[in-house]
Amino acid sequence: MFKTLPGFREFLPEECRRRNFYFSQWRRNSRNYHFQEFDGPVLEPLELYEEKSGAEIREQLFCFTDKGGREVALRPEMTPTLARLVGPRLGALRKPIKWFSIGEQYRYERYQKGRKRAFYQYNADIIGEAGPAAEVELMALLIDSLCSFGLGEKDFAVRLSDRQLWIMYLRGLGIEEAQATSVLGVVDKLGREPEDVLEQKLEPLVGNEAAGLLKKMIAFSRQQSLDGVREMFRDSGIVMDELESRLENWNELLQGLQAMGLSSFVQIDLGIVRGLAYYTGFVFEAFDREKSHRALAGGGRYDNLLGMLSRKEAPAAGFGMGDVVLEDLLKEKGLLPKWVEETDVYVVGITPEERSVVLSAVRALRQVGFSVEYSLTGASPKKQFKGADEAGGRTLVVIGPEEREAGQVKVKDSRTRSEKTVSNKEMIACVHHILRGDPELD
Amino acid sequence: MFKTLPGFREFLPEECRRRNFYFSQWRRNSRNYHFQEFDGPVLEPLELYEEKSGAEIREQLFCFTDKGGREVALRPEMTPTLARLVGPRLGALRKPIKWFSIGEQYRYERYQKGRKRAFYQYNADIIGEAGPAAEVELMALLIDSLCSFGLGEKDFAVRLSDRQLWIMYLRGLGIEEAQATSVLGVVDKLGREPEDVLEQKLEPLVGNEAAGLLKKMIAFSRQQSLDGVREMFRDSGIVMDELESRLENWNELLQGLQAMGLSSFVQIDLGIVRGLAYYTGFVFEAFDREKSHRALAGGGRYDNLLGMLSRKEAPAAGFGMGDVVLEDLLKEKGLLPKWVEETDVYVVGITPEERSVVLSAVRALRQVGFSVEYSLTGASPKKQFKGADEAGGRTLVVIGPEEREAGQVKVKDSRTRSEKTVSNKEMIACVHHILRGDPELD
Repeated sequence: MFKTLPGFREFLPEECRRRNFYFSQWRRNSRNYHFQEFDGPVLEPLELYEEKSGAEIREQLFCFTDKGGREVALRPEMTPTLARLVGPRLGALRKPIKWFSIGEQYRYERYQKGRKRAFYQYNADIIGEAGPAAEVELMALLIDSLCSFGLGEKDFAVRLSDRQLWIMYLRGLGIEEAQATSVLGVVDKLGREPEDVLEQKLEPLVGNEAAGLLKKMIAFSRQQSLDGVREMFRDSGIVMDELESRLENWNELLQGLQAMGLSSFVQIDLGIVRGLAYYTGFVFEAFDREKSHRALAGGGRYDNLLGMLSRKEAPAAGFGMGDVVLEDLLKEKGLLPKWVEETDVYVVGITPEERSVVLSAVRALRQVGFSVEYSLTGASPKKQFKGADEAGGRTLVVIGPEEREAGQVKVKDSRTRSEKTVSNKEMIACVHHILRGDPELD
Repeated sequence: MFKTLPGFREFLPEECRRRNFYFSQWRRNSRNYHFQEFDGPVLEPLELYEEKSGAEIREQLFCFTDKGGREVALRPEMTPTLARLVGPRLGALRKPIKWFSIGEQYRYERYQKGRKRAFYQYNADIIGEAGPAAEVELMALLIDSLCSFGLGEKDFAVRLSDRQLWIMYLRGLGIEEAQATSVLGVVDKLGREPEDVLEQKLEPLVGNEAAGLLKKMIAFSRQQSLDGVREMFRDSGIVMDELESRLENWNELLQGLQAMGLSSFVQIDLGIVRGLAYYTGFVFEAFDREKSHRALAGGGRYDNLLGMLSRKEAPAAGFGMGDVVLEDLLKEKGLLPKWVEETDVYVVGITPEERSVVLSAVRALRQVGFSVEYSLTGASPKKQFKGADEAGGRTLVVIGPEEREAGQVKVKDSRTRSEKTVSNKEMIACVHHILRGDPELD
């Protein structure tokens, strides 16, 4: 009759527990890295995303006009919101600003593997640090976050690239900086779209040399070492000083990662340029080693975005990690925990006369923090014991006419089957005793 | 430049911590009551809300047409989504179904105190239990949730009413059940709109007796005891058997709350009827005792909604609690915790030569679960120590050339100022020692 809209997600209890598990691991890692959580509105002015994020985002915006005639969009990503929020507060906040967020984000695109119209994303960003130390911190957090789910260096790698190197290289090929962003949009599609299609896309940007340039760009995108990069630059006859100065940043970044013990997770791969137009320096993406999934996470430096969105300039870098590809990979690797719906205590009343003392015991046990279940309808004792089984109650509290009259309850360990009759006052201590895991009641 | 849309909310770190505090208290209480968390999409088909929720909701929907030509709305409440999700799964789920959710919800209305266009709501529902035992469980959860923030019976009360009693009473006044829902829509506005306006709204529903009927309805709405209700029924000459049978349900509900020790939180108040059209029985709202705020929470029984939305009939009841009024009240009562942004450990490197060992120590400490901060830029020692102060680091790990060469670190308790030089391997144990709260290093 009524269905969930295409591409949107519903979280039944088991899925919701999984989702909350991702959230809590992300939060725990962020705390270890001393990042502060923030959140922004789910709906933003459309213009916040126009142009700044590039064509890739614009086509996929879930946008509409609200009743007040405003053009608005469901947030497709968090970074513009972050830049908008931090900009006006830049002076007051202690720097570097290390913030993270966990929130649902929305893209209006065709439904496909690893992509939905609604997905959760974990974002971590550092604002106010221009050097590669920010990238070290972010890439380490990204890697440790994935590792906290049980993934290791055999399961995933972070591919590291650099739009500054690309822009230098393109300049060597005669492509000016004004065109470079659009040309990188074409580079981003390498391997995903046929070469003749890319050539066609390149032509309006670089004229009729498109075919030859595309070949050189493909060669550059295949570089997986700094020596390889040097080689390609030497061939193109560019001023090497600028290159060497940039390679010093590379060394700082790679040495930082090495000091953190993370080198084995990192691969140089100039094929990564990231789709979003606002990136300005290092960019990186995490992939499963088999590359059978889309990127697990991606990010990079975006030094101009705050200036564009808030008139306050500040260097910045960050990454985002979605829950959809992560979950696919965790499933594939057998790393998804199985949750069992279990209550701590189940309270049984033998006759309807026990109703009041059952309710009183239930609340008393809940107030000290136990998860407590009981039969709402006061069904037959047989049905109640079955209910206790189904609820997975480790401890049974049973009250019959005898116990009620004596102001007592029977407390039973459902695993060892041992039981003990205690006064109402001793009930809580007795339940504690069982749930602490002691094998026998004394 | 770019601003948050009117009525939408941004959560800077302090606000975000507050929000997460509400979430964690709501989750903890739900777990104690053995409710399972679920979540639904933020966007739903418009028709899910049309008619079922009544005029109050329809006027306030944040709705639009998506790119695919679908009429959709940002969810204004969670109950229709719950009914839609549970309906098709009714057979497979263990009953009663006890589910809760925490999510942002949206209403397109004028900005006013205690109301925003976006707000978080905690919802708890029981599906599959027709008797008042469900209401006992829900009202107890509602009360304990508010108490878990430090509020007590002096701060708030739950006002309890009954649309079944109202419908019976209206029938006695000659108003048929078909009109009753619309008439209750008018009752809902008592005290909030002038009587002559309400009389005008009543006229199309009941004809020219509106003035007299309104007076009787006002008298009925003022009843605050079951004896008072009996009195009013006696005057109107209705069959009393039906009334007495309903009052037995009332007794069951009130006795259950008494057994749980919650009577002092509950007030009978027939003035509550709830705006949403789908309620069918008991309804309740929690208010601060001074009634200087809007309702903190509200809910009731909605036995027909599953049938309307999923073609599967099932009795159901639930409540919702928003974060906005709750926060206003907690502020007023001085019950909002102050959070201090604090890291466990701050690692200082005296010269740039220590960079690698600093990074290595940082990651080692993070890996065992400490929150660790350090200077990204490797500033002067003075600036680093200042940074450690600002980050509130309880423990300092200091590495200078001497320590580096000896494979050691200096660990310092920033409160007692005691310090100790230990090997790299002993660092973690030593930090544990300080953070466990022992006053002195030995």
